[in-house]
Amino acid sequence: MSHDTREKIIQSASELIYASSYSDVGVQTICNHAGVKKGSFYHFFASKRELVLAMIDAQNEQAKNAILDPSFASDIPPLERFTRFLETMYQLQMQSKNECNHVLGCPIGNLALEMSTRDEILRQKLESTFEKMKQLFKNTLQQALDAGDISDIDPDNSADALLAYFEGVILLAKTRNDPDIIRKLTPNIKGLLLASY
Amino acid sequence: MSHDTREKIIQSASELIYASSYSDVGVQTICNHAGVKKGSFYHFFASKRELVLAMIDAQNEQAKNAILDPSFASDIPPLERFTRFLETMYQLQMQSKNECNHVLGCPIGNLALEMSTRDEILRQKLESTFEKMKQLFKNTLQQALDAGDISDIDPDNSADALLAYFEGVILLAKTRNDPDIIRKLTPNIKGLLLASY
Repeated sequence: MSHDTREKIIQSASELIYASSYSDVGVQTICNHAGVKKGSFYHFFASKRELVLAMIDAQNEQAKNAILDPSFASDIPPLERFTRFLETMYQLQMQSKNECNHVLGCPIGNLALEMSTRDEILRQKLESTFEKMKQLFKNTLQQALDAGDISDIDPDNSADALLAYFEGVILLAKTRNDPDIIRKLTPNIKGLLLASY
Repeated sequence: MSHDTREKIIQSASELIYASSYSDVGVQTICNHAGVKKGSFYHFFASKRELVLAMIDAQNEQAKNAILDPSFASDIPPLERFTRFLETMYQLQMQSKNECNHVLGCPIGNLALEMSTRDEILRQKLESTFEKMKQLFKNTLQQALDAGDISDIDPDNSADALLAYFEGVILLAKTRNDPDIIRKLTPNIKGLLLASY
């Protein structure tokens, strides 16, 4: 019943659900994948929902370290960080395409469309995850405004527009099972920002 | 075993799956909702997947008549039709929010994120549905180019960008369970189009 067991369960859930869906992956399948007994699972998590809430926290932490912090680091001008973020998305989706033949998309967007009408607790968790991403985008836009790289935008509105656009681009890549659309639609960020009004 | 029975099954599947998800709605539940026996179901459809392929056709036909044809009618200039389309989306999501307390989102986007990695036949069907929408957007942009309302855009690229943006905006509305974001992000269409390059 070590801390490692809990981490193994979360990691298994993350891999299995990301490659498939919430509904399609049961607790028994997660336990089999993690090599733990069901009793052990319920020692750590009261339900699949509780596990998935912890899984989203773990995914957010991983995304922060592996994707968001490097993409939005201050070594390049603020607006260029959005381009770097999409290039990172492209690389990750290409990697999953090469490894499992599928573009897996955004784990948060996937769960949001599958679960938002079915589980209010999960919906709120996913909404707050998007809210954190939006705040990161908004802060970056504010830095661009302060540096005079851009003007006449409402950073709150533009941050929402970017978040919507990124989720939509990744949705298209998943539906087409082809990451190329991410690169093709990257230059359009500029338009979305520069002529918002 | 009438044609009506088939339509009733499709309509039940459409309502139930749209409000929940593909995995969450079984054949028995669809039969109960439609008031038909399982034998009758399998007279018309070899599997749930076959039913869902027919359901997507029916939804596309309904969307064409109720949403796309009216939104993209030629009584207003081409670019304004995109704004009218998003306003129609807003009204529909507000209606579902009022009726069932949930923003249900885009039925095609919902299935695309749930099923694209799990069923290649469904993925291709959803991809081709998006492709038809893209062509409609592209034709509309070409009309705007021909009329001189816009210049210096690649209508193929911009049609993809609009499709991604619309799906992303509706994804956010569903995740927040609030249609307001659709109206807030409508003016940004202009930027996405006017400064693509």
